[in-house]
Amino acid sequence: MIIVLKPRTTAAQIDHIVARVKELGLKPHISRGEHRTIIGVIGEEEKIRVQPLEAMPGVEKVMPVLAPYKLASREFRREDSIVRVRKARFGGKYVSVIAGPCAVEGEEMLFRIARAVKAAGAAALRGGAFKPRTSPYSFQGLGEQALRLLRQCSEEFDLPIVTEVMDTRDVGLVAEYADILQIGARNMQNFNLLTEVGKTQRPVLLKRGMSCTVKDLLMSAEYVLSQGNHEVILCERGIRTFEEGTRNTVDISAVPAVQGVSHLPIIVDPSHGTGRRDLVAPVARAAVAAGANGIIVEVHSCPEKALCDGAQSLTCESFRTLMTDLRRIAKALGGVM
Amino acid sequence: MIIVLKPRTTAAQIDHIVARVKELGLKPHISRGEHRTIIGVIGEEEKIRVQPLEAMPGVEKVMPVLAPYKLASREFRREDSIVRVRKARFGGKYVSVIAGPCAVEGEEMLFRIARAVKAAGAAALRGGAFKPRTSPYSFQGLGEQALRLLRQCSEEFDLPIVTEVMDTRDVGLVAEYADILQIGARNMQNFNLLTEVGKTQRPVLLKRGMSCTVKDLLMSAEYVLSQGNHEVILCERGIRTFEEGTRNTVDISAVPAVQGVSHLPIIVDPSHGTGRRDLVAPVARAAVAAGANGIIVEVHSCPEKALCDGAQSLTCESFRTLMTDLRRIAKALGGVM
Amino acid sequence: MIIVLKPRTTAAQIDHIVARVKELGLKPHISRGEHRTIIGVIGEEEKIRVQPLEAMPGVEKVMPVLAPYKLASREFRREDSIVRVRKARFGGKYVSVIAGPCAVEGEEMLFRIARAVKAAGAAALRGGAFKPRTSPYSFQGLGEQALRLLRQCSEEFDLPIVTEVMDTRDVGLVAEYADILQIGARNMQNFNLLTEVGKTQRPVLLKRGMSCTVKDLLMSAEYVLSQGNHEVILCERGIRTFEEGTRNTVDISAVPAVQGVSHLPIIVDPSHGTGRRDLVAPVARAAVAAGANGIIVEVHSCPEKALCDGAQSLTCESFRTLMTDLRRIAKALGGVM
Amino acid sequence: MIIVLKPRTTAAQIDHIVARVKELGLKPHISRGEHRTIIGVIGEEEKIRVQPLEAMPGVEKVMPVLAPYKLASREFRREDSIVRVRKARFGGKYVSVIAGPCAVEGEEMLFRIARAVKAAGAAALRGGAFKPRTSPYSFQGLGEQALRLLRQCSEEFDLPIVTEVMDTRDVGLVAEYADILQIGARNMQNFNLLTEVGKTQRPVLLKRGMSCTVKDLLMSAEYVLSQGNHEVILCERGIRTFEEGTRNTVDISAVPAVQGVSHLPIIVDPSHGTGRRDLVAPVARAAVAAGANGIIVEVHSCPEKALCDGAQSLTCESFRTLMTDLRRIAKALGGVM
Repeated sequence: MIIVLKPRTTAAQIDHIVARVKELGLKPHISRGEHRTIIGVIGEEEKIRVQPLEAMPGVEKVMPVLAPYKLASREFRREDSIVRVRKARFGGKYVSVIAGPCAVEGEEMLFRIARAVKAAGAAALRGGAFKPRTSPYSFQGLGEQALRLLRQCSEEFDLPIVTEVMDTRDVGLVAEYADILQIGARNMQNFNLLTEVGKTQRPVLLKRGMSCTVKDLLMSAEYVLSQGNHEVILCERGIRTFEEGTRNTVDISAVPAVQGVSHLPIIVDPSHGTGRRDLVAPVARAAVAAGANGIIVEVHSCPEKALCDGAQSLTCESFRTLMTDLRRIAKALGGVM
Repeated sequence: MIIVLKPRTTAAQIDHIVARVKELGLKPHISRGEHRTIIGVIGEEEKIRVQPLEAMPGVEKVMPVLAPYKLASREFRREDSIVRVRKARFGGKYVSVIAGPCAVEGEEMLFRIARAVKAAGAAALRGGAFKPRTSPYSFQGLGEQALRLLRQCSEEFDLPIVTEVMDTRDVGLVAEYADILQIGARNMQNFNLLTEVGKTQRPVLLKRGMSCTVKDLLMSAEYVLSQGNHEVILCERGIRTFEEGTRNTVDISAVPAVQGVSHLPIIVDPSHGTGRRDLVAPVARAAVAAGANGIIVEVHSCPEKALCDGAQSLTCESFRTLMTDLRRIAKALGGVM
Repeated sequence: MIIVLKPRTTAAQIDHIVARVKELGLKPHISRGEHRTIIGVIGEEEKIRVQPLEAMPGVEKVMPVLAPYKLASREFRREDSIVRVRKARFGGKYVSVIAGPCAVEGEEMLFRIARAVKAAGAAALRGGAFKPRTSPYSFQGLGEQALRLLRQCSEEFDLPIVTEVMDTRDVGLVAEYADILQIGARNMQNFNLLTEVGKTQRPVLLKRGMSCTVKDLLMSAEYVLSQGNHEVILCERGIRTFEEGTRNTVDISAVPAVQGVSHLPIIVDPSHGTGRRDLVAPVARAAVAAGANGIIVEVHSCPEKALCDGAQSLTCESFRTLMTDLRRIAKALGGVM
Repeated sequence: MIIVLKPRTTAAQIDHIVARVKELGLKPHISRGEHRTIIGVIGEEEKIRVQPLEAMPGVEKVMPVLAPYKLASREFRREDSIVRVRKARFGGKYVSVIAGPCAVEGEEMLFRIARAVKAAGAAALRGGAFKPRTSPYSFQGLGEQALRLLRQCSEEFDLPIVTEVMDTRDVGLVAEYADILQIGARNMQNFNLLTEVGKTQRPVLLKRGMSCTVKDLLMSAEYVLSQGNHEVILCERGIRTFEEGTRNTVDISAVPAVQGVSHLPIIVDPSHGTGRRDLVAPVARAAVAAGANGIIVEVHSCPEKALCDGAQSLTCESFRTLMTDLRRIAKALGGVM
């Protein structure tokens, strides 16, 4: 931690700051430059990070040196974590695809889609039972009925299930049916929910919030990890920017940026990331080429009748074509798909 | 709703779209221009808004004409809503100030701050019992103990209490102690939580999410209103932008923009909105001058020892000075403070 | 300057970095923490700022301690700079309003508007002769003819003229006619243009670019100042964010943020900042309440026939009302208007 | 163009609007819905686009239906444009790489890098002669001397030269030496500069501005095209977002989004797009996988001594490795590299 002082700080102010740092059991090192005095603080940075040093007279700014997450960091674990869910693998050289409808709308439709994505090589099936909708008047998901259908599908096609949990009260229920618990972008900083899923034994798919930095994402992962659940898969799904031609802007550089500082797997969601069907395949290919550990993508047998997100769903046929391209790219770069 | 077709759309595609619109009980009006054909849809726009028309062959884009919220709109209610909480008033010509510490840290500190803000003219007391912290290792609030202290303070100083609720499971508990339930920025799109607070009889202070538009904010208010709770106070608290000198960027134009389309009161949070103590007073003054119905501001008797957000807290003394300025501005513009 | 090293940096890497720092005539101070080694560099930070130290093996990041601008900083000049242009004053306690049409469209219209804004108390007249238009097919301004009309208006109404210069080749011409040279947001980082206006004797009104930080703005001011022209007025005119209800988002906190670190005056442009006539007055009031040294606002005698920016122009009548409000706010806060 | 009226618009207001539309030679079509009346305008949308209809009483908003660019659109030209510069090809199935140092620093260094990038398969050589630097105290480029060195290099290695022009006064000079004129991100909306390069016979590499949408980028291309210069190569180079871990955020979806609506080639700049050497290769691979027509990348023989952008430059060796990967990806997807 570096404390930068204002110009013309008095000796009494410096003494006060130094005393405060020592009070916390840390060692201050003072460097006096021509223009500024700075105080380096050696020791457990987390102790001081939570202190409002900026509120002390004479302090201009406080610059942390270390990352604020620990369990999620590469320094904590140097090799890639691999999350294993039945036959699916997330992390390392594996490239795994999660596919399915935005929301579970009914049995027939779900089974038709599941069959198609399985045949095309998907590693897991996605499908929403509880849907976060910006309008209270939109379709909110079929709830437990959808969970049951997903479970049946899972057994029929031997596909692990990924579905979103939105409420701390539902974590137990969803964990009974699902193989992977998804935390949606809007709940990435719902810290109570993170804590609850951290207490389950289920792997967690954690989506990046629309206004969250890579560091924020890793801090949210830290919440789950700190509860003892080490199976976290991160997901880049687009951030909010001024660009109005797409629903969100996929931050493709987040993939290698996360992999540089964390051992956790990271996948990309090109469906929510773009909101436009014509952009899904190119962005999915980009994700795999950037080194993502997989993608999660919306597929619908009849997008124009989908109750949710039809405009961004691939048809079963275009999904098949995409899978061929992804396999080629993965192979070209030494990935296992 | 306007459906814009792609160039070179076939007659069969147009027929298919028209049939679909009629199926939904709505009337399509076709206009053929030189470059594009467009289909205007007359009728209940909400019926069609949830349909994935963009997924139909031949459709280039779909442009909604009406706002997606109803109960929150000025068309639903033309005059300003005024939320009354004991002696405090939010809405219309009233300018009301909510002040207090970020988090409740202990009895003595809380009472000292409450006394000071009451003396300076605050209309309500804020203080966190449950704190959303980006790090699992940070102070998370004193929970129910804090709620009890807030209640005692409320009685001692005759100040309504505003405190955040973060978990659907805690809504009942918090509603027992608090006068106003705060939904934090990170939970603005926690739709289950919105629904739960909508079922209580407590006024709700709804903070704008860091990546949410004014329209998103009104949609979240709609969730609360649609449950039968009409007492919603909106709060602009800064959005996330590329500017790195401040924690967030206060969108000052959101104040008149909301007031133009909605009857709900809107206040501003200059503390979280800037994250810097030196900017709190100027932004608070700006808020009142822009027509805000009040502000919510962090005040601490000793910011440098605050367990949370010390760097952005006003001292009791600087709060007093600010109140004088706000009163002058409100008076100059015909506000009641 | 602080150089943070990666974990597990070798002694040879550290020696190499230290040698490089010394080569530049600076003194490195090494602090070895448990998790990280950091090297503080004392001396002229600008020498090292331009060095790609991040490219050296073992370096994780480089954190500058000092601001990169000098002449624009409060440390260079502690008291507020006041820019004097005929009777107008920008800076310190003065609150001055620049008003007029977006573009000069013709003599009659310009004189009518000038008369109205003068009568309402404007300190200067704005009007575009050269217009930066996103479409090559839009009205581009009347050029030198507009400059001549502005000059006549200036004499008739005793109002200094503010007009934009967009091209290094036009600086001489515009400087002949205008009292203040405006650099538009899109040219804020047109460094050659900054250099050219820096060589003139005319005050410069420098608008913040839509994706530029406060620090970037001050760096652009530094370009002008470094050429010997000390008369720079900064202007916050909205930044680009995800909010789609307004053309830009006015960063109101930029006003006190700039005033904290710089001696230069700063005004606000609520017209381009919002792009919506109904938001102009509230944001203008907010600007003055936040401590801005003035505003620049578009006024048109018949907005619906304006060749440029009609949707955001005030009528002469609403401008008069706004001026009354601004005067009251300025007075309430001790400003001179 | 769709004109949406406010609720409770009077008949007189509607008549006034209709009259105005007819005055412009266009045909209004009125549709009266339950909640809103809308007026569709058929005819040349560009005539009405420049009119401030939003300023008319009774108008709520105006929604354009057509794109504002013409010559840049796929409707103007359906097949991909291919820009040919000596042996290099940009557009269609071609994947071409432009590589070289950020700035030309001297003869020996430039020739060493040129030899290396040529050997690795680069199609063109980049190198800055005039550098846009945020600080007036940074190295500004060697100017004409650099242009001469680039020319010599071009002849020695048979590589076309790409270099930036920043000032309308330098267009003639730069066009004498360079094969492709680069317009930097900060000048994307320097409309006079766009007009000047549009008058030359040189292909133009147009970089997307940091706060510009895809539509803005195409409008800037339209400026060049409208002068008669049809050789425009677009470049996605990262936009400004709240993410602080990277210098900019590459908008990877801009590649297919541009290709959907425009016939112009588009390449990606992973160096400025990320600002971090460790992210350059993954983002470059992503670009090619997304369908980009090439990349432009900074390569330096000794990044730690580069006078400009060393932190984001690849070494010659890592560039070679990248080229191998790009060739594999291009091949897997049917591209020609």
